[in-house]
Amino acid sequence: MTDLEVINNIKSLSIDMIKNAGSGHSGIVLGAAPLIYTLYAYHLNVNAADPHWFNRDRFVLSAGHGSAMLYATLFLAGFNLKLDDLKQFRHLGSKTPGHPEVRVTEGVECSTGPLGQGLATAVGMALGEKILNTKYKIDDHSSLVDYKVYVLAGDGDLMEGISYEAASLAGTLKLNNLIVLYDSNDVSLDGPTNKAFTENVRGRFEALNWTTYHVKDGNNVTELNKVLNKAHNAHGPVLIEVKTKIGEGSLLEGTNAVHGKCLDDDDIKQLKGKLGMPKEPFFYQEEALQYLRSKISDRVNNKYKDTNNLYNAFVGRKCSGDKTLASYLFSNKFNYDLLSLEWPMDAHQKEATRDSNTMFLKYLSKNLYTFVGGSADLGSSTKTYVSDLPDVTASNYAGSNIWFGVREHAMGAILNGLALVNLKPYGSTFLSFADYMKPAIRMSALMHLPVTYIFSHDSILVGPDGPTHQPVEQLAMLRSTPNMKVFRPADVKELLGCWQVILNTNANPSALILSRTEVATHQNTNAKMATYGGYLYYKEQQPLKAVIIASGTELVYARNIGYELATMGHQDFRIVSMPSIEQFLATNKEYQKQVIPDGVTKIVIEAGSSFGWHRLSNDHMNYITIDDFGASGSKDEVLKHMNYDYETVKARVFEIMDIH
Amino acid sequence: MTDLEVINNIKSLSIDMIKNAGSGHSGIVLGAAPLIYTLYAYHLNVNAADPHWFNRDRFVLSAGHGSAMLYATLFLAGFNLKLDDLKQFRHLGSKTPGHPEVRVTEGVECSTGPLGQGLATAVGMALGEKILNTKYKIDDHSSLVDYKVYVLAGDGDLMEGISYEAASLAGTLKLNNLIVLYDSNDVSLDGPTNKAFTENVRGRFEALNWTTYHVKDGNNVTELNKVLNKAHNAHGPVLIEVKTKIGEGSLLEGTNAVHGKCLDDDDIKQLKGKLGMPKEPFFYQEEALQYLRSKISDRVNNKYKDTNNLYNAFVGRKCSGDKTLASYLFSNKFNYDLLSLEWPMDAHQKEATRDSNTMFLKYLSKNLYTFVGGSADLGSSTKTYVSDLPDVTASNYAGSNIWFGVREHAMGAILNGLALVNLKPYGSTFLSFADYMKPAIRMSALMHLPVTYIFSHDSILVGPDGPTHQPVEQLAMLRSTPNMKVFRPADVKELLGCWQVILNTNANPSALILSRTEVATHQNTNAKMATYGGYLYYKEQQPLKAVIIASGTELVYARNIGYELATMGHQDFRIVSMPSIEQFLATNKEYQKQVIPDGVTKIVIEAGSSFGWHRLSNDHMNYITIDDFGASGSKDEVLKHMNYDYETVKARVFEIMDIH
Repeated sequence: MTDLEVINNIKSLSIDMIKNAGSGHSGIVLGAAPLIYTLYAYHLNVNAADPHWFNRDRFVLSAGHGSAMLYATLFLAGFNLKLDDLKQFRHLGSKTPGHPEVRVTEGVECSTGPLGQGLATAVGMALGEKILNTKYKIDDHSSLVDYKVYVLAGDGDLMEGISYEAASLAGTLKLNNLIVLYDSNDVSLDGPTNKAFTENVRGRFEALNWTTYHVKDGNNVTELNKVLNKAHNAHGPVLIEVKTKIGEGSLLEGTNAVHGKCLDDDDIKQLKGKLGMPKEPFFYQEEALQYLRSKISDRVNNKYKDTNNLYNAFVGRKCSGDKTLASYLFSNKFNYDLLSLEWPMDAHQKEATRDSNTMFLKYLSKNLYTFVGGSADLGSSTKTYVSDLPDVTASNYAGSNIWFGVREHAMGAILNGLALVNLKPYGSTFLSFADYMKPAIRMSALMHLPVTYIFSHDSILVGPDGPTHQPVEQLAMLRSTPNMKVFRPADVKELLGCWQVILNTNANPSALILSRTEVATHQNTNAKMATYGGYLYYKEQQPLKAVIIASGTELVYARNIGYELATMGHQDFRIVSMPSIEQFLATNKEYQKQVIPDGVTKIVIEAGSSFGWHRLSNDHMNYITIDDFGASGSKDEVLKHMNYDYETVKARVFEIMDIH
Repeated sequence: MTDLEVINNIKSLSIDMIKNAGSGHSGIVLGAAPLIYTLYAYHLNVNAADPHWFNRDRFVLSAGHGSAMLYATLFLAGFNLKLDDLKQFRHLGSKTPGHPEVRVTEGVECSTGPLGQGLATAVGMALGEKILNTKYKIDDHSSLVDYKVYVLAGDGDLMEGISYEAASLAGTLKLNNLIVLYDSNDVSLDGPTNKAFTENVRGRFEALNWTTYHVKDGNNVTELNKVLNKAHNAHGPVLIEVKTKIGEGSLLEGTNAVHGKCLDDDDIKQLKGKLGMPKEPFFYQEEALQYLRSKISDRVNNKYKDTNNLYNAFVGRKCSGDKTLASYLFSNKFNYDLLSLEWPMDAHQKEATRDSNTMFLKYLSKNLYTFVGGSADLGSSTKTYVSDLPDVTASNYAGSNIWFGVREHAMGAILNGLALVNLKPYGSTFLSFADYMKPAIRMSALMHLPVTYIFSHDSILVGPDGPTHQPVEQLAMLRSTPNMKVFRPADVKELLGCWQVILNTNANPSALILSRTEVATHQNTNAKMATYGGYLYYKEQQPLKAVIIASGTELVYARNIGYELATMGHQDFRIVSMPSIEQFLATNKEYQKQVIPDGVTKIVIEAGSSFGWHRLSNDHMNYITIDDFGASGSKDEVLKHMNYDYETVKARVFEIMDIH
């Protein structure tokens, strides 16, 4: 058995999977099979029998459309995939979906597909290793954690801005545990890359402080190994440009036609002839499987035993046998009660929620080993910089504050990577710039990752910076993203409740929306009740006719309107504070109906898009919301201009309630 | 009078504006004033008396937070800004908003603020010039159009992925009319850039095929001029890294504290002393104003006359005095009747709307001089590549097809740039990747630009590629963006109606949502009626009880359910086709109520998020929508899995209508 024969098994199986599914991407499979094979056979420290081994190397297929090749390799390498699973490629409920999905398939470390995300997420995984490596040092030379992150990326990945952003930061942070194989085949979906992508890619990465190598023949496993071995000794991240031929061996070799194509019968027949594989579908050589598996186990077995011994010794020494603590060392799953702690609320009687938030970030950063985060160069404004704790830097990764630079999009993907290696990360910017991160936010949601997005400057109240800096539709964007929970607390007490939920949200991202505007702490808000997402803030004293629902800074409007109504003798309304629609909708229907009963007038007051509030009730909702762009001016000027000053909002409430 | 004295006038005025407003960005103003001054005094061919001169050079302040400096310069340069306007800086309704806004201020060419957008948009403006330059050639050596695009960008701009994407394409397209001054001051909002940004920026741009220069002292106007003059002869785009000191002259010079700060009185006092300016607020020297104005007019007057003469001669020659045509040459405003043309609809009886769309793109590309566009490397799948027309390339810019590469975000900004120089551009990708473009889409909407975004693969019907490729919340994201109109036609006839609206939408972006799934042309659809956004597709025969509203591919569901209901003897419902909610809401209320009357059951059928449909009626809406992520599987498997197969949808409609 030879390397080439195993590679041909991977190619043959992959092409059969695509043929059987009727769709898939033949181009990358035939071009890059030697690359993925070389990684698994000679470099990746993984153990198919213990796929979640904490110290395994991570492999990210950033060019996620090459999934067939990944599944075929995982199958041959002994992961929990049967031949039948390969036959189910791209079918519903299979372990072999169209693009790789983490947790669906053992051995898949990251969901990929949208280009650039995988590489940027891998930067987060590599940074996460550096943080853990430093935190779990055993002595000056070794650590409990010392894995590498390998990426296979294509031209499309490298054209995406997110991969540049992440790569630039990886260079600054000297992530020498990150190795990217660049499958350079001069062809993308629409045609030759020289139509749009003529840059000197290696030159660019060198300018980003990466070490680069060039392998001229992607089929040369010996050369690939030589370069990969060199790469292990680099002082920073490594890009290896490997020249391959898209669709190699197919009649469409070297053209974009083969990129996303299922080969036809004649082509498969001649291809299998070239590969020396029988034309029988899903044929593979048992010897190929044995060959690959023993290559992996021969290399990894001792390291696997050693790190597990180290781990047990470490746990014995550091945790005095406390297995809970031990498991927590490598988990971002919390069961933590913030509400039972004492908080100096009096010191936060009147302040913006972005400022109140600092107290919680500081506490969490100091007390939770896996809590880490930073900002896309707006920490001074979002107030997420934990000033009395160290930064995460290339000379000391064991810090609390990550400097992401003005790179919102990469920040999102890096947070995903940190969460994938079991940290509990947060990142912050202004709410209007959530737009820059949307694709990464979607990946957090798709992968069920406990990432916390912190967005301050949450409405037109931002004022003079003008409409580019004033969010309007961003809350709707976040709320419409499946699996995402959005929290917009009204004051420091609700913020505590929100953190209580966020911290214990173990399988989904959260967005915490904070104000720049000062708010006095409400008498009627309640941290415990805020954990329900929505609750009764002020109760009617007469038969109920109207429910006023508000969130964040607008709860002040609701309260003051309530005072005025009460003063006028109206007691037939209630006020509901709604820091999180999604959290509220996750409570039982009975509670929901108790808080927002059917058949009465509903009024929503929120300084953002009306989109998404319809979920609260089957009744008509009256929206006092903002569905247009703001303007540059003082806060009060802008509020007036947008018909959102207190008097106008009050008048609209009165009109809806038919009060004159 | 000297250059330095004018520069000091700009600095002094800017600092006073910020002081007077109580907020703004002093850092860039004090560091980069010599750069903006040098551009206006010695390079920019502009005419303050004719600010919309078609052949003017464009200046884009990508670091939009430096707006004060731009306004002060425009004031001194003679644009339509009075001293009083400077005093109104950051106030509502002023000509001097917090960040530059195109059309609000004469001389401002592009709204900026969100970092990276300005530079990427400038790439579009430069590409636009190249296209116009080639189309309006007078002879081998000269063209009616030959302006340059200058950009002032900061560290933040260059950290953003979008600027990398756009710069890479600018290098490929050899845009030698684009010159970027990089205000390199080693400090960003949160602190020193070396915390997160240690790359070799010039090295990176060289790898992108840019020519780069280095000016070590940003105060050296002579050196700046020398380098800028060299830059005019480059063979591609140029980056000039200019070392400056953030907040130069302030007590906070060189620190991030001065970035977004309004200087205090003592600091202003000592600063003005250094600048040799009196401490009187808003003082400026009349001689400085005269000096700058005459520098500009001395340089530009002849060129201005010459190009205007050329223009008149050109119009006389080419357009035979047809002034309408002449004005159209430089306008993206259409008044064009597609409905009056003959279309071979029979050839499109059963096809995906992405395929039907090719006919319209081909017609428009051939017949409208300013119609141009392309795809982010998905033209083969979105079917927007106009195969019988040439590409836009570095050797022939006068093509129809732009190859954007896998760069959705830059594509959006470049489309904005093309629209800003009066082209009518479109760009395409999959709907799920609209996420990547959101910040640029928002800028289209904020700037009221007639950009057409074409998004195919519009729902979970995408099938096997899985949830990363299946849009769910994207329609909501687009519809919630103010000023944006979203069109989701059901078939080729509605598509014609949508294009009729889109083409004549002169001051707002449009998103055209297309299916990959084949649909047979409906008997009841109507191009003319589609221009109303929504219309009666099937009318009740008995007193109305229910309105079924559908869009796109789901109109087939509605129709078939309608057949079944009718067969069962139910004639008390109507079907409304709703290709564009926003267009429908722009019709008069009376029409809206005619189509969707109050007080009857409402059912919405759309394979996307429920967000946004509440705008159609004050009545409760029954949503048969998709609010969760999809899955990888065949189309039918996925539909079934998501409870969105025909039988399930029908059963839900029947249940809502209480039919058993």
